[in-house]
Amino acid sequence: MILSIEESRLFKLTNARSVAFLGASSRPTSMGSSILTSLLASGFKGKVYPLHPKEKKVNGLEAYERAIDLPEVPDLVIIVLPTAIVCQAMEECGQAGIRQAIVVSGGFKEVGGEGSVLEAELKEIVQRHGITMIGPNCLGIANLHQNLNSTPLSLDCAPGFVGLVSQSGSFVTQMFNYLERLNLGFSTAFSVGNEADVDIIDCLEYLAVCPHTKVIALYLEGIKRGQAFIETVKKISVKKPIVAVYIGGSEAGRNAAFSHTGSMSGPDILYDGVFQQCGIIRAYSITELFDICWALAVLPRPQGDRVVIQTHSGGPGACAADACSREGFHLPPLSSQTEKELEPFLPQMASTKNPVDLTFTQNPAEYFFNIPEVLLKETVVDYLLIYIMIPESTIRSRLQEMGMSQEKTEKTLMDIAQFAEQSILSLRDAHNKPIVGFTYRSLDEYLVKRLIKQGVPVYPDPSRAARAMKSISDYYKTKEALST
Amino acid sequence: MILSIEESRLFKLTNARSVAFLGASSRPTSMGSSILTSLLASGFKGKVYPLHPKEKKVNGLEAYERAIDLPEVPDLVIIVLPTAIVCQAMEECGQAGIRQAIVVSGGFKEVGGEGSVLEAELKEIVQRHGITMIGPNCLGIANLHQNLNSTPLSLDCAPGFVGLVSQSGSFVTQMFNYLERLNLGFSTAFSVGNEADVDIIDCLEYLAVCPHTKVIALYLEGIKRGQAFIETVKKISVKKPIVAVYIGGSEAGRNAAFSHTGSMSGPDILYDGVFQQCGIIRAYSITELFDICWALAVLPRPQGDRVVIQTHSGGPGACAADACSREGFHLPPLSSQTEKELEPFLPQMASTKNPVDLTFTQNPAEYFFNIPEVLLKETVVDYLLIYIMIPESTIRSRLQEMGMSQEKTEKTLMDIAQFAEQSILSLRDAHNKPIVGFTYRSLDEYLVKRLIKQGVPVYPDPSRAARAMKSISDYYKTKEALST
Repeated sequence: MILSIEESRLFKLTNARSVAFLGASSRPTSMGSSILTSLLASGFKGKVYPLHPKEKKVNGLEAYERAIDLPEVPDLVIIVLPTAIVCQAMEECGQAGIRQAIVVSGGFKEVGGEGSVLEAELKEIVQRHGITMIGPNCLGIANLHQNLNSTPLSLDCAPGFVGLVSQSGSFVTQMFNYLERLNLGFSTAFSVGNEADVDIIDCLEYLAVCPHTKVIALYLEGIKRGQAFIETVKKISVKKPIVAVYIGGSEAGRNAAFSHTGSMSGPDILYDGVFQQCGIIRAYSITELFDICWALAVLPRPQGDRVVIQTHSGGPGACAADACSREGFHLPPLSSQTEKELEPFLPQMASTKNPVDLTFTQNPAEYFFNIPEVLLKETVVDYLLIYIMIPESTIRSRLQEMGMSQEKTEKTLMDIAQFAEQSILSLRDAHNKPIVGFTYRSLDEYLVKRLIKQGVPVYPDPSRAARAMKSISDYYKTKEALST
Repeated sequence: MILSIEESRLFKLTNARSVAFLGASSRPTSMGSSILTSLLASGFKGKVYPLHPKEKKVNGLEAYERAIDLPEVPDLVIIVLPTAIVCQAMEECGQAGIRQAIVVSGGFKEVGGEGSVLEAELKEIVQRHGITMIGPNCLGIANLHQNLNSTPLSLDCAPGFVGLVSQSGSFVTQMFNYLERLNLGFSTAFSVGNEADVDIIDCLEYLAVCPHTKVIALYLEGIKRGQAFIETVKKISVKKPIVAVYIGGSEAGRNAAFSHTGSMSGPDILYDGVFQQCGIIRAYSITELFDICWALAVLPRPQGDRVVIQTHSGGPGACAADACSREGFHLPPLSSQTEKELEPFLPQMASTKNPVDLTFTQNPAEYFFNIPEVLLKETVVDYLLIYIMIPESTIRSRLQEMGMSQEKTEKTLMDIAQFAEQSILSLRDAHNKPIVGFTYRSLDEYLVKRLIKQGVPVYPDPSRAARAMKSISDYYKTKEALST
């Protein structure tokens, strides 16, 4: 195991300062042109050198005919050429001294027959020249901290702390927008394609020591080097959590995986065994994958499995209780001391049982500060799961009906949200216990958006919250077991 | 069983044309004032008569001291008074001839002791006067087709076709906004509270014959009249699908339910048996509840369990295949005739296996019309599950980089969406097979929003789509079994 990313053979690839580009042209709709445009639009600061046999300018940049014509040996070449000419291009790049490559082009091993022959040839070339290659049949990388993006969609999200290794390029490029909405974001994401050279394990080793990466997400259709995978992951997972979606366990998933990347997958029972053995948390959908990464990345380590639920609405509270119970959480009764401390803040009909249900609230100070403060102090509580529901549009119209000006109304709403946010953040810092929100409203509403922005996860359903919370509990238990 | 809503004893309550209101005052933050404001803001067209012992005007309306002072006998009284004076108020309303009532006030049976005594007294009063009463401890009703809303949040959604019976008021009033985002919407929603008079069964009977209601959603913490429930639901579910969340099956759910509405719940195994016996589809979260209602309300009856998946991205397609497989769907291989017909539209790398994966597409005409048309014609296909991903922001910047004006760019994007929408709608009408979309992008993006607006369900994850599709298949099978 390497100790820093600089030691990784991927370092120069993921942190390239100059890039040669093969496959972009004046035809703007081709995949090559798309990727080059995306690379430039993503704010990459390094040099970019398009290579083209005829065109003198590509995408406004000076184009070169051959790799050896370039004014410097670039750190990386990105190849998006027709399958048949990829090998020759790679040979020329190798001869020109280029030692890092991403091959986006498909038509290799995943289509079988002649494709497999071509892939073997490509592999021979990169080995002979000592080239580190990602692909073929991939989208390469998105290193958000360097604005280095070889995928067709531009980076419309901030750099974050989720490292991704994916056997699907879509889950790199098409998740920028998804993660941005959760205020997550990739540190570096890898689309590994056919793994002819660089494979999942190399990427995992890189992310294990990447200082920006707090949690590793994995999209798997099938593992190739089984034993090495287990050994590597065992070492990583005690340091950083790894969450994986594996879709090769069902019949249709297996078939789809095979025609997608030519992966040989195994039954669920086999993969579940592998995951358990090496401390991988399994997710069953992409949504769940990132739900779990979210919790693991932003929440502190819980001390146990005891949850207190705070709500001002019985039904959502009961649903949260049910969801937590189904995940194996315990909802302890609160001490009489806590019940007594809650009393001044609770209306007469309220329940001081767990869920703590105010039944009705109009005082954000109590709901977002006094009550959660009492609950977080309670020693039997490891997690606070809190219902977030401020019906902005209704409050807005009520205040205006009461004669408040539009300006004053908006300010009042913002003040409420700001107060709630500051309260939750100060409680989080003071108590160091996981605080998780849930709501049925849009994550774009003002308060929810602010909380998310500050690293408080707010899930759009308590079941998703409970599942993600469970994964943290599981992770720390497994970590302990693997460490001893 | 009644044959029309006019025959229902709830009809005059849910379609009241005049409402007396007890519990609103000049103090705008009280629950009573909130509900009165909400009723008025929801656009209720009938007469509203506040009753108040002292104030002459409430919320701008002339207030009356006692029920007998009113200029007419209103169809309905809404009572939001302190527990202790509810019985006396109901007695006066009864004496004034009012025969429909909603009692929002809590503090009755759900708190036990004196509360139970008061509830028995209240029950005696309504029975003696022949009053139809919803509550106590409820939020009453929201009949969106009449703008009649006794809940504290205003109707910020269009009337729809989901009937709801809920043992939580929150899932009436706090779901307006949620459902609006899916272009669903309630027909009539009932918060039944303690069910001292009107109970779940009465509401189900009403919704069964409500012409606006296509599907019935049920939020259950515990059933009271078990045998009657089974008999009634058996008759309804062969006509209209019923989907239920039941949260009393887990330990914490049971406890929460008890302190919420005093419901006595039973173990999952008992309720699963009941649900199966009478054809109720069980959902495990509120999100799932409405996901399933959505599919049942807008999709045609599928002829079998065979799904074809269309995608332009391998990973999302493989995830959809895995999700469908896990729900028990079959992904049949396509006939050679279909493969041949697809050929002209597919790039060289594409897969004509199922999932049909274009790997890359830039032609909306083919993606949204030609290809799905071929797939829907295929006899082995019962459902089309299609990946919807148009990266608007990227297309926007690409077109502008190519020199297109902002106006023209927006028009182009809109044209693409309009074409896609029209194609999908015409295919839906021509083939009468369920077409279901999935995406990982926001449901607020232009094309997705338009499709949803036209009644094409687009789920934010293929797992949610597959689960909802499964529920349709299950429903029609159960319906057939129960009908014979």
